[in-house]
Amino acid sequence: MPGSIRLFVTCPLEPGAESTFDRAQAHYLGRVMRRRVGEEVVLFNGRDGAWRARITALNATGGRAALAEQLTAQVAEPGPWLAFALLKRAASEIVVQKATELGAERLLPFRAERSVAGAPNPERLAAIATEAAEQSERLTRPAIARVLSLPALLAGWPPGRPLFAAIERRALPFPRDGKSAGLLVGPEGGFTEGELDLIAHTPFVRPVSLGPRILRAETAAIVGLALLAASAGHSI
Amino acid sequence: MPGSIRLFVTCPLEPGAESTFDRAQAHYLGRVMRRRVGEEVVLFNGRDGAWRARITALNATGGRAALAEQLTAQVAEPGPWLAFALLKRAASEIVVQKATELGAERLLPFRAERSVAGAPNPERLAAIATEAAEQSERLTRPAIARVLSLPALLAGWPPGRPLFAAIERRALPFPRDGKSAGLLVGPEGGFTEGELDLIAHTPFVRPVSLGPRILRAETAAIVGLALLAASAGHSI
Repeated sequence: MPGSIRLFVTCPLEPGAESTFDRAQAHYLGRVMRRRVGEEVVLFNGRDGAWRARITALNATGGRAALAEQLTAQVAEPGPWLAFALLKRAASEIVVQKATELGAERLLPFRAERSVAGAPNPERLAAIATEAAEQSERLTRPAIARVLSLPALLAGWPPGRPLFAAIERRALPFPRDGKSAGLLVGPEGGFTEGELDLIAHTPFVRPVSLGPRILRAETAAIVGLALLAASAGHSI
Repeated sequence: MPGSIRLFVTCPLEPGAESTFDRAQAHYLGRVMRRRVGEEVVLFNGRDGAWRARITALNATGGRAALAEQLTAQVAEPGPWLAFALLKRAASEIVVQKATELGAERLLPFRAERSVAGAPNPERLAAIATEAAEQSERLTRPAIARVLSLPALLAGWPPGRPLFAAIERRALPFPRDGKSAGLLVGPEGGFTEGELDLIAHTPFVRPVSLGPRILRAETAAIVGLALLAASAGHSI
């Protein structure tokens, strides 16, 4: 159903089941999108594929929908992992939104030495990822890891997954094997010398360049993910 | 001078010349960046390269700097042209900022049938492009054309410059000749059937895909420009 409203829900989706809407979803459906009882939406929960459902109740505080049929079976949605330094709030939120649109499977915020932002609100980041997953027609939401330091992030990284670090400015050939890779993007002020040294001595990290100009941190995340996807044949 | 403050000015830059700062630049230099008389900045005007200059006066309403030496000769900065449908204000501003970072030479906003935003403030868009040019170490600012309708935009487009229209969702091989190309991105709600028909019948337009997911309009602009640059060998 192209153009349908898609909503992420947490309950199981199966024949004959009923799903509920929370207050925010009810507000969105009824007030923002002007949907009424009897109209259809598409539901997904990250486990049971996408389902057509008919709204059976809707008021200011919640609602319900009856599941009609499965439109798409659940499939795995492998994608790049994005490790990004905490940025100012608006920039971090742009990163989460765009990375979700671009198919990131896992988001790993970390505190860099030059990170100036406080700890992000996990519920707020999850809500942004959910909305982006709904709108971009994913069947899953990216997992958002808890904030780590850069050393802890690298120590816990699966060594078999290459991690491309956007730290070079000169033109480098981009890897052609970005399918199961990760992208590492630093903070607004760049990595410190100590961090660069740590990165350089981490075996699975490979430096890459995103071009000749200085990019903002959130732009680097978006551009790097687009190029990883392209190198993996996921897009264009 | 990596890490220097870079400012766009309008006056000629030549040996022995003096440049002036307007109120906004003086505020930025003195209050935000805490620079003082005697310290150095880098100036560029889009015509005379980049120059090292020493601040000779600075107060709340303006300032002056004495030019010391040229750091970089002016070079042409050819890049893609970006034709983008007017989006909500914040999204249009993101497009202008990111397109400048990504090297766009010319920005051509147009009014699509499903554009919901009012006319943008040209001074505000120019200020955003200027700041992005300063921070990304460009030597030029992108030109920002006045808003046209889609038919007028296409009628005035130089036929020798391919215009890649981000209107397909399936995977298409991306062009390898994006160097002197343009990118066409529609509004939040997509192009209308009539617009798609017009686009399909315009000889220099070539449909491209930005991947399997639905992207927001501003994401499509950023991703499309990154892929055009990569295809032209400008980056990575």
